[in-house]
Amino acid sequence: MKKFIVPILVACSLPAFAVAQEGDSATLRKLADEVLTHSTAYENLRVLTKQIGGRLAGSPQMPKAEQWGVKALKAAGADTVYLQECMVPHWVRGAKEEARIISKRRDFIPPLNILALGNSVGSGPDGVTAEVLEVASFDELEAKKDQVKGKIVFYNHRFIPTNIKTFHSYGEAVMYRGQGASRAAKYGAVAVIVRSMSHGANNFPHTGAMRYDSAYPLIPAVAIGLEDADRLSLRIKDDTDAKVFLRTNCEMKKDTIGYNVIGELRGSKYPDQYITVGGHLDSWDVAEGAHDDGAGCVQSIEVLRSFKAQGIRPAHTLRVVLFANEENGTRGGTQYAAVAKARNEKHIFALESDAGGFTPRGFSTTVPAAMKAKIVSWKPLFEPYGINDFEEPGGGTDVGQLNAAIGTPMAELYPDSQRYFDIHHAANDVFEAVNKRELELGAFGMAGLIYLVDLNF
Amino acid sequence: MKKFIVPILVACSLPAFAVAQEGDSATLRKLADEVLTHSTAYENLRVLTKQIGGRLAGSPQMPKAEQWGVKALKAAGADTVYLQECMVPHWVRGAKEEARIISKRRDFIPPLNILALGNSVGSGPDGVTAEVLEVASFDELEAKKDQVKGKIVFYNHRFIPTNIKTFHSYGEAVMYRGQGASRAAKYGAVAVIVRSMSHGANNFPHTGAMRYDSAYPLIPAVAIGLEDADRLSLRIKDDTDAKVFLRTNCEMKKDTIGYNVIGELRGSKYPDQYITVGGHLDSWDVAEGAHDDGAGCVQSIEVLRSFKAQGIRPAHTLRVVLFANEENGTRGGTQYAAVAKARNEKHIFALESDAGGFTPRGFSTTVPAAMKAKIVSWKPLFEPYGINDFEEPGGGTDVGQLNAAIGTPMAELYPDSQRYFDIHHAANDVFEAVNKRELELGAFGMAGLIYLVDLNF
Repeated sequence: MKKFIVPILVACSLPAFAVAQEGDSATLRKLADEVLTHSTAYENLRVLTKQIGGRLAGSPQMPKAEQWGVKALKAAGADTVYLQECMVPHWVRGAKEEARIISKRRDFIPPLNILALGNSVGSGPDGVTAEVLEVASFDELEAKKDQVKGKIVFYNHRFIPTNIKTFHSYGEAVMYRGQGASRAAKYGAVAVIVRSMSHGANNFPHTGAMRYDSAYPLIPAVAIGLEDADRLSLRIKDDTDAKVFLRTNCEMKKDTIGYNVIGELRGSKYPDQYITVGGHLDSWDVAEGAHDDGAGCVQSIEVLRSFKAQGIRPAHTLRVVLFANEENGTRGGTQYAAVAKARNEKHIFALESDAGGFTPRGFSTTVPAAMKAKIVSWKPLFEPYGINDFEEPGGGTDVGQLNAAIGTPMAELYPDSQRYFDIHHAANDVFEAVNKRELELGAFGMAGLIYLVDLNF
Repeated sequence: MKKFIVPILVACSLPAFAVAQEGDSATLRKLADEVLTHSTAYENLRVLTKQIGGRLAGSPQMPKAEQWGVKALKAAGADTVYLQECMVPHWVRGAKEEARIISKRRDFIPPLNILALGNSVGSGPDGVTAEVLEVASFDELEAKKDQVKGKIVFYNHRFIPTNIKTFHSYGEAVMYRGQGASRAAKYGAVAVIVRSMSHGANNFPHTGAMRYDSAYPLIPAVAIGLEDADRLSLRIKDDTDAKVFLRTNCEMKKDTIGYNVIGELRGSKYPDQYITVGGHLDSWDVAEGAHDDGAGCVQSIEVLRSFKAQGIRPAHTLRVVLFANEENGTRGGTQYAAVAKARNEKHIFALESDAGGFTPRGFSTTVPAAMKAKIVSWKPLFEPYGINDFEEPGGGTDVGQLNAAIGTPMAELYPDSQRYFDIHHAANDVFEAVNKRELELGAFGMAGLIYLVDLNF
């Protein structure tokens, strides 16, 4: 029976579809060839990472990055390039942090490799010295709450290795970084050390945003490298009198001014309707912000450049947005959404790339059912490029603000995630960790999706 | 109409399938969890690459690598581990090669970054100094055959950037490395320089096997890094009197003895029927042979280890084979196939991993139609692991010998190929270029495929 049904299905459903998709298939191939042959994404990334470097909101690097963005968008062929002002947090790390195990034993103990978490208060010049209470979870913290007072709480929660998509492990673990300090301060902890959000095979500590619950004292929070987390855990089990000394020099200053950098390609039919594609310009200070999120910025610019190079004028206005501040405040996306709402702008779709410049595997989406069905119907168009995972729910942090404010359908490029948490928010997120072709294939995938959304909605 | 047909299809074709696949799905999940949690592949690779290093057939490293293989297979739980002798070529690079542009101009010209191609003759102690004739193809060589005499022919054929699967670009370009010397010697060339088989963004030269046609003089052949290929090309267009000096010290010695390292897990039902899984133990001398093919070796060992750890006893005997010599002779695979044929062994299936330890995307196959259909029917089982490309024709070089000799169905793990030709046969094919999780996911994919083949054939 199956043998009969399959041809019928093909006969009655494919032809119209096939005709429509044949032209799209050719356009996607042209976009792929354009990007893989003439992309400026990799060279743009080299300049951003190597000549400017890490660029936290409020840092001296940020104005340079904004100027880089303006120049790159103009070079890509944007009709209009402008800055959109917003207030951004201004957190500074200060002098290098330090931590070590203090023991009555006389053996040599190497220092602990730590990084203050973003938005954390500093320890003060004398640092903090205290015994360490290790917990693997908030449940364990609650069970041991009577032992917390005066201690440094050490969240030694391991990344789940068996998730195939590593973002699922991140999603499960990141609350210890985000909420760990206040949850421990509630019971009298004097500082927290958080096992890095990674399953990497090295000892880089991974920073990242934390936030305080103002109901409790603000205590210093640091990330620790995985090898040192294991070493610390072993040591305090064996050497029960051991303490840890840590000193951080970070500080939250007053909010300052930052800018979303925006480039537009004016729509031919609906110039007042927008499709947004973007990444965030800011990055943590400890590396070059190459994958996170220089990659997303240069890929977004490449969408516009490849459209121009291939003579594709979108029906709706394409807006490339390099968001001012994602890492420790999401102020760039919030401002962009607030302005869109205040102006009553019509936004068709928003696409973000903020999951690394790795081989693209698909797109995560938060879109209405009809749009989802349409996007899934494009799977055969993307299949030749190895892009075939359209099932993940999601969308980016920055475009998420637009979705929240005015309901804009949103998506995020979903790259292969195996290497992301090796480098995420760590000193090894550098240009050399980005592969040119992987970056370009991601840019192509984004261009292809934007092309199809523009044509069909 | 479509709405009616789809439920019918589901209703009449899925249930039996679903029941059969439910158990398989659970077993694959167990294998994935085992590998991602307890794999020894990455640590095995560290020892092979960092403690032994590059290991060309006949090199002093090779006996150490064989002993490593025996130990690793025993530790993984093989019932039997043994060596299978074969004759292997013994090519040595000798002292470091050198090349430079010789110009009448007085400007400083940095040396050219080259590597002798494997199996090439050396230049002799005085080296070769000659004008350079650049060609982009054999067609251009033929058109310019009258200009070749006394020259160094420079094959400056570029990798096609628009192929999504980079092996297709390699397949198109590798003939210049393999045949270029003799094709040029036919017309009187004194040496050849071959643009490296890569689209990498660096200047590493990529070596690899070449072979001579004995009808023509044996002339030295070298690979040149991509940046230096571009530089040389520009220079000789502008500085038409320029020559190149190159000196290589390589030499083909007499064949010597090598060994395939074999570990078996005895089959419970058909102990005299074999399923082979393997990679090649040899590697080029210029790096650590991490992706090529340490990865394939440790993944193959991991298949056996994960079966043992999960209590899976295969019906057929599982043979893990670390082939003695793939890079410059395929003598390991040839010998394995010759012995199998001579003993009239029954081989059900052979799987190779020799395309790098990157995120697995699928399997290339050369199998009968019925087996192909069965393998494709397993796609839903592999989909949760991002493994979904089963359409590529292929199979590995080593297991290809078994296929050629006795028709054994074969497959090769097909990983994401974007980074492979950045490091292939070059100095940067080192342990640090391998990601632990990507390596493990590949090993899991292999274990899953072997499990299903063993169960169904």
